[in-house]
Amino acid sequence: MSTNYKFEGWCGLDPSAVEGNMKWQRYDPKPFTEDDVDIRISHCGICGSDIHTLRSGWGETNYPCVVGHEIIGEAVRVGQNVKHIKEGDRVGVGAQASSCLKPNCEACADGPENHCSGMVGTYGSVYPDGSKSYGGYADYNRTPSHFVFKIPESIPSADAAPMLCAGITVYSPLKREGCGPGKKVGIIRLGGLGHFGVLFAKALGANKVVVISRTRSKEADAAKMGADAFIATEEDPEWAKQNANSLDLIISTVSSPNMPLGGYLALLRTNGTFVQVGAPEDELPGFVAFSLILKRCKIAGSCIGAPHEIQEMLQLAAEKKVKPWIQERPLRDANQAIVDMESGKARYVHVPVNEKPRDT
Amino acid sequence: MSTNYKFEGWCGLDPSAVEGNMKWQRYDPKPFTEDDVDIRISHCGICGSDIHTLRSGWGETNYPCVVGHEIIGEAVRVGQNVKHIKEGDRVGVGAQASSCLKPNCEACADGPENHCSGMVGTYGSVYPDGSKSYGGYADYNRTPSHFVFKIPESIPSADAAPMLCAGITVYSPLKREGCGPGKKVGIIRLGGLGHFGVLFAKALGANKVVVISRTRSKEADAAKMGADAFIATEEDPEWAKQNANSLDLIISTVSSPNMPLGGYLALLRTNGTFVQVGAPEDELPGFVAFSLILKRCKIAGSCIGAPHEIQEMLQLAAEKKVKPWIQERPLRDANQAIVDMESGKARYVHVPVNEKPRDT
Repeated sequence: MSTNYKFEGWCGLDPSAVEGNMKWQRYDPKPFTEDDVDIRISHCGICGSDIHTLRSGWGETNYPCVVGHEIIGEAVRVGQNVKHIKEGDRVGVGAQASSCLKPNCEACADGPENHCSGMVGTYGSVYPDGSKSYGGYADYNRTPSHFVFKIPESIPSADAAPMLCAGITVYSPLKREGCGPGKKVGIIRLGGLGHFGVLFAKALGANKVVVISRTRSKEADAAKMGADAFIATEEDPEWAKQNANSLDLIISTVSSPNMPLGGYLALLRTNGTFVQVGAPEDELPGFVAFSLILKRCKIAGSCIGAPHEIQEMLQLAAEKKVKPWIQERPLRDANQAIVDMESGKARYVHVPVNEKPRDT
Repeated sequence: MSTNYKFEGWCGLDPSAVEGNMKWQRYDPKPFTEDDVDIRISHCGICGSDIHTLRSGWGETNYPCVVGHEIIGEAVRVGQNVKHIKEGDRVGVGAQASSCLKPNCEACADGPENHCSGMVGTYGSVYPDGSKSYGGYADYNRTPSHFVFKIPESIPSADAAPMLCAGITVYSPLKREGCGPGKKVGIIRLGGLGHFGVLFAKALGANKVVVISRTRSKEADAAKMGADAFIATEEDPEWAKQNANSLDLIISTVSSPNMPLGGYLALLRTNGTFVQVGAPEDELPGFVAFSLILKRCKIAGSCIGAPHEIQEMLQLAAEKKVKPWIQERPLRDANQAIVDMESGKARYVHVPVNEKPRDT
């Protein structure tokens, strides 16, 4: 297959990129090695991280930056050392492109490579060779094969794309913290992450899944996704009291620090865990230590997932026919899609589709 | 044995009790049942909870209140239903006097009775029959036998007393969170709880135990207790950076909310856990969610321990010859001992000893 293709995509050049100012231009990917895979991109979901990064919300972004780390496409060039992918395979890449893989790395050695401090993100990061990583709002992507996954046949590309970051971000803590039969699980905020929280909590067999939102505006959607109950924190002043000690596990996908954390902790049963996966740019509010001490509860964090968890999630999604709520958008309209996402219009995930003619 | 004894002790009557104003007077214990044990008190450690409670710091105290829940003494009356204690045994009582013990209680059914929401504290609580519980700054104590423990012969009474609350409060999370060979453990604040943290972390076989304090004033003591390293947060501005990612587990015994929580979290390695056991009266400070998310860390709470953990701890203390640093005080000087404890003079635990002649 020809390798005579160009790396071009939507580049953020400064924080105004988030306002619809990404520019379509060429960039230099990492030099190809025999461990890498080149992907001709067909789909790339829009993730909240893209917004934070475009506006330098999590620290100064390394511009120019092509965001997008929910990438699906066709493997068009596969390094000779790569065993699990062959040319023509439908593959995907999530938020991580590389880890240090050193035997003395506590994260890589024990399995949670997604917590490797030498992690290279799929975009906006720098590889050990000094080259930059570029994401999926583009025609092509080049990523080390260890973080390239084959997509099960039964999952449509547009559905698989957002699983690779939004999906795994909630799947990983749900699985690790014991979501399953007998468990009652709360999902805070019904957005892209939260809607996957409901879908995967049900797929994992939780007894009860409760959506916690500010208002009841998405209650009907939550029910259609399989949620068993709904709490609206701004519509019922007694929400924390009435639902106290009712949940084993809460996944908070809120990305604003302006949250009623004390109330959320009141919902936990003894030994319960509150996992924050949304990453606010500012500090979370203070809280009363008693709320953790008396019930032996925990506040945890979690960040995407390890490769083996991604494979496990894709398998579960295929078996249980997990069907995310996505809206396809043409990749040429990525600027508008970002603006719509930022204004909260997504129901529940926007997935840009690369429809333009190929140069291969 | 005669049951013709009086229940008299140091009663807090209002918040000024904490300033040396406890009054020695008579009170009515719970009515005796065949599940109860009466103890002639020989020792009762002073716990930080006593101070919080005497001044109504954790909410309005149910005065009159006899504090003290690190009680050692002789069983002088044992209910007929009690199998594990007999008259004349040397026994102890910790911070919990009763739990609901109902089969549908999630805490009691699963084992962590110390998190039963129907818990009756050893003092200042109300039993289901409406009677009040009274603690150990007194001549006698009456407690349901399920929370009365036989003390191993090799542990002196003055040493055993503070284990029953201070000791178990740190032992329980150390054990549960995997303190042992291969683990590096931090203990924040070297007070009564913290010094037990060092002793039990070493007894459990941790590879490295690090004391974290504001100044180096207690560094020599820490080393004598077995600590391997010392961090002084107010003397080294680079403490958090220099010691980043170095600890698997941190037990925070700080009871002031004025703590550098972000710095403490920076000390944790991937998958690390920060356990708060000190219970500040005000909110803990806010923190950046990233500090939990990127390293998959947790902030947990823990409260005393379950009966089986107390037995396990006493066994370990006997085997490993755990030797707390205590200062005996005459019970008649309890008011002064409380004032000294509150002013931070304890090195590291004050144990009032009831030396007065008995009326038996």
